[in-house]
Amino acid sequence: MGFTATLRPGLIQLRVLDLDKTLDCYKNIVGLDEVGRTSDGRVLLKCYDEFDHHSVVLRKASEAGLDYVAFKVADAKTLEDIKAKTEKFGYKVTELKANDEQPGFGKRYAFTICTGHQLQIYSDVELAKKFPPIKNPDIWHEQPRGMRATRLDHFLLYGPGIDEAERFMKEVFDMYVPEVCNTPDGKRLAAWITGSNKAHDLAFVEYPKPGKMHHFAFFLETWQDVLNAADLIAINHLKLDIGPTRHAITRGTTIYFWEPSGNRIETYCGGYTAYPDNPQRVWDADQLGRGLFYFSGEMIPSFLEVVT
Amino acid sequence: MGFTATLRPGLIQLRVLDLDKTLDCYKNIVGLDEVGRTSDGRVLLKCYDEFDHHSVVLRKASEAGLDYVAFKVADAKTLEDIKAKTEKFGYKVTELKANDEQPGFGKRYAFTICTGHQLQIYSDVELAKKFPPIKNPDIWHEQPRGMRATRLDHFLLYGPGIDEAERFMKEVFDMYVPEVCNTPDGKRLAAWITGSNKAHDLAFVEYPKPGKMHHFAFFLETWQDVLNAADLIAINHLKLDIGPTRHAITRGTTIYFWEPSGNRIETYCGGYTAYPDNPQRVWDADQLGRGLFYFSGEMIPSFLEVVT
Amino acid sequence: MGFTATLRPGLIQLRVLDLDKTLDCYKNIVGLDEVGRTSDGRVLLKCYDEFDHHSVVLRKASEAGLDYVAFKVADAKTLEDIKAKTEKFGYKVTELKANDEQPGFGKRYAFTICTGHQLQIYSDVELAKKFPPIKNPDIWHEQPRGMRATRLDHFLLYGPGIDEAERFMKEVFDMYVPEVCNTPDGKRLAAWITGSNKAHDLAFVEYPKPGKMHHFAFFLETWQDVLNAADLIAINHLKLDIGPTRHAITRGTTIYFWEPSGNRIETYCGGYTAYPDNPQRVWDADQLGRGLFYFSGEMIPSFLEVVT
Amino acid sequence: MGFTATLRPGLIQLRVLDLDKTLDCYKNIVGLDEVGRTSDGRVLLKCYDEFDHHSVVLRKASEAGLDYVAFKVADAKTLEDIKAKTEKFGYKVTELKANDEQPGFGKRYAFTICTGHQLQIYSDVELAKKFPPIKNPDIWHEQPRGMRATRLDHFLLYGPGIDEAERFMKEVFDMYVPEVCNTPDGKRLAAWITGSNKAHDLAFVEYPKPGKMHHFAFFLETWQDVLNAADLIAINHLKLDIGPTRHAITRGTTIYFWEPSGNRIETYCGGYTAYPDNPQRVWDADQLGRGLFYFSGEMIPSFLEVVT
Repeated sequence: MGFTATLRPGLIQLRVLDLDKTLDCYKNIVGLDEVGRTSDGRVLLKCYDEFDHHSVVLRKASEAGLDYVAFKVADAKTLEDIKAKTEKFGYKVTELKANDEQPGFGKRYAFTICTGHQLQIYSDVELAKKFPPIKNPDIWHEQPRGMRATRLDHFLLYGPGIDEAERFMKEVFDMYVPEVCNTPDGKRLAAWITGSNKAHDLAFVEYPKPGKMHHFAFFLETWQDVLNAADLIAINHLKLDIGPTRHAITRGTTIYFWEPSGNRIETYCGGYTAYPDNPQRVWDADQLGRGLFYFSGEMIPSFLEVVT
Repeated sequence: MGFTATLRPGLIQLRVLDLDKTLDCYKNIVGLDEVGRTSDGRVLLKCYDEFDHHSVVLRKASEAGLDYVAFKVADAKTLEDIKAKTEKFGYKVTELKANDEQPGFGKRYAFTICTGHQLQIYSDVELAKKFPPIKNPDIWHEQPRGMRATRLDHFLLYGPGIDEAERFMKEVFDMYVPEVCNTPDGKRLAAWITGSNKAHDLAFVEYPKPGKMHHFAFFLETWQDVLNAADLIAINHLKLDIGPTRHAITRGTTIYFWEPSGNRIETYCGGYTAYPDNPQRVWDADQLGRGLFYFSGEMIPSFLEVVT
Repeated sequence: MGFTATLRPGLIQLRVLDLDKTLDCYKNIVGLDEVGRTSDGRVLLKCYDEFDHHSVVLRKASEAGLDYVAFKVADAKTLEDIKAKTEKFGYKVTELKANDEQPGFGKRYAFTICTGHQLQIYSDVELAKKFPPIKNPDIWHEQPRGMRATRLDHFLLYGPGIDEAERFMKEVFDMYVPEVCNTPDGKRLAAWITGSNKAHDLAFVEYPKPGKMHHFAFFLETWQDVLNAADLIAINHLKLDIGPTRHAITRGTTIYFWEPSGNRIETYCGGYTAYPDNPQRVWDADQLGRGLFYFSGEMIPSFLEVVT
Repeated sequence: MGFTATLRPGLIQLRVLDLDKTLDCYKNIVGLDEVGRTSDGRVLLKCYDEFDHHSVVLRKASEAGLDYVAFKVADAKTLEDIKAKTEKFGYKVTELKANDEQPGFGKRYAFTICTGHQLQIYSDVELAKKFPPIKNPDIWHEQPRGMRATRLDHFLLYGPGIDEAERFMKEVFDMYVPEVCNTPDGKRLAAWITGSNKAHDLAFVEYPKPGKMHHFAFFLETWQDVLNAADLIAINHLKLDIGPTRHAITRGTTIYFWEPSGNRIETYCGGYTAYPDNPQRVWDADQLGRGLFYFSGEMIPSFLEVVT
């Protein structure tokens, strides 16, 4: 099958403040489809180019932020293997039964890593009712709308002890680390981690408070779509953080903005095609501003200060 | 490491008629760098965004076409595993010693599959003298030139018995098959095969004559680069086959043209992000024209008739 | 005001066969807005980025083709001046009263030139109900849809005696001729003509039958939009003529396709910024295929044979 | 000829501090060609897509900034007409003889307007030795390099009394004003002015100090070229001011950066197609930040403070 272990981040559940207003942003500006609602009022969404049942869940709460992210793994055997390796690594694993809380999803395992984030894994999920064409397929069923987000792409998590988290992703999730940033005394400040050819499936930044989310990202196909996303941010009076710009790190082009509940969204495009045999790219901490915001070459305060 | 078995097609050796004229095309129009020459006069080339020693070799011969293609595999153990599985599959394997014929490359194994094509595998190759920046890395050392080809991307091979070849790629190379085309009686007419997130690392079309190459492809970053490549084809009076257009199959945008020796080159861009758990896309033979040349919807005769 | 005489082609009335099906194409695929209908059943349309009342009119008829094209001129005085110069040039001019047949339009003058085409001129037209934002303006009111046609751009007319037609456009409409194609004996085969910085407002090709339209064109903003237009042609099973490609003539990128009634539409993008002091570009007839279809370098038969 | 009076801004002479370093930027990063040098050491440059002898002149001086900008007018008669109208308007006009100081240029008239800027006009200039192809023309002679600047596009001038300057451009240069920004008490704060379809040939911002230049702009063909320009700014460690972003005003996409001598360059792309009959777009002063920097919606201090 070409891949082992984790395939991709496939599900994110977010806490939002004003469900209607935030949902309107995801549906009508970002361009996601509403798939359904749960009995407890959560809204299930997906991107037009995703096959699985849903990928984004909005839960009304008093504080914005991340409930958890879940990774799809290769198959049922891999699921059990990773569960066992996770327990051996030292994290307590909880089983979530099929269709329990996430309609369409099979059994999931949940655990909290040292950075304070809950991760989940699953191998089985129903196909969405409306997935990309597969029989003499057109390139889409309907012209993508809004920002034309194609898929959930990656996450950036802030928390303490990312050395351990990075080791966990390598040893247990069988991922690799195409790019890192180190402090002058050689400690890890940030790591970009992937299980595939994508430049990153997730990233960590060392941060004293546990369980924080810097952003999560949707993938856009082209730099023209990045411009279109920025136009929609302006027209809809969303709050821009930064962009359009390029990350030297991963080489992707990007915009960061805040959806109405204050969760930071990235609309990310491009990025190099990563391979585990390529040399690791290494950044010095004093160059991190340039690594993140290549054109100005300077760190922006909001990058380090504003998280949910 | 996220990947098992084959990482990617990493090397192609081509037969060319007029070495100087053809080399000029690869260097000054396609935009490759000359890495060196062998004692027997072959020219070693690479794309600006590749790390390994070289990826394209031109050998002067009386007939254009493909000598062989070689796949990089994950590591030395994988190399031996695939070698053993290849022999068990029934193909005779020959060992090629390190630096023997391909400077910078470690031990390779060569074998010929049912379609008449020689494939090779290797796990070890030196880094190129000039590879992409990795220390506080800029996005490139020098502004890419010509068609701005970023890497060797994939091959399309014509030959008999592609059912077996497809099975070989799955069982021995641990690849998967995102897209296929079948005849009305259910036989395989074509298969697009990958070991990673790329929509295809190689493809086969059923064809009575063995060992033929339809094209090999370089990857371009953007649809704007596809336009630029077409402009360079026009200005340099190269012979266009078709494009710019889109393949519905893989969804990539594309141009086919012939370099001066008559080998068909594709400049390919985009393509969906493939995953082994996504449903396979299936084409009927009578829709293959639309699958290949989405905008006109019609097969062009040269696609089926002209190979080297 | 910077411009004299003619500002731009501002109105085209087309004959269509199946009004509903053709209207659906213009509205939902090309992306025009329906502005209204006349008492005799004609449909008035406009592009999202146009200010004037309407620019495209569909009239149900038994044969597809062009009723007339109309140019907006600088002001009322210019209108009378051009009318007088037209009569002096030798063409009989008819006055069409305000709001007579074209709602929102002021007085028009109509006349038929040597090539058999009816042209009209007007200086006064109401603003559309929905025109681009002008007060602290956003870049659009609503995200453009379908092919995202921004405006009516130009026409290509086939007919006899284009030497005279070219002279008329220069002497009476005060236009200039950035690019021409001549036969080996120095006769005009084609001329591209403009009154502004646009590479062409209209063009003529010498042709024995009078009054024929080769195509009319909508302007697209980007090469990415050209790809999007081609995708929509494929998905909606419209009949492609050629493209995406580039015209060396005018340098624009382009697609030709036929709407359901058989009128050929061009979705045109780019083109150089023309100035009357730049040297005229000149094509030899035997290079016209390359001038029109730069990438293949070859004339396609439909270009010379299929007109409405 | 379609145009009256002024055709375009065709020449700018800049003061630079370090001639070699600054010249290197214009040639090897922006992508201009060096046309020649004058006996007093000034360097003459042009963009690859310009026909006239040269368009940018660098003069070594102790302070960066603008010597003057010159507009090409339609013909010799127009030149004398505008000269006479300028004198009647109240500005003293000086005649500069042909080839005097600007090789290849015919007679120029120079005068200083109320804002303290020297403007010049001319109707006659030699063609460059290397101008765009015109006989069965390819789209360029050589693949554009660096930022791929196609032409000198426009200027933004800061000075006092822009009401009068705007009136001068309309009455004497026969230009029109597609877009303005007014203070709450109805005074002009800024005006964007053009003599053609370009969204602006020049602009003024009201400012207490006379004769200041905010920036001058080169035109880029695509948003992809804007990204490329930003990449080159980063790689060459030039100082970015802002961008890539969009101006809501003119709708162009843009980057501002400083060349090594401290003159601000804009690499500008797009912009609407302006016509004198379209309604004027009007901005309130408190929305100017949004008008200039559409995505953040906020004024940046350097826009109002840093001029040369």
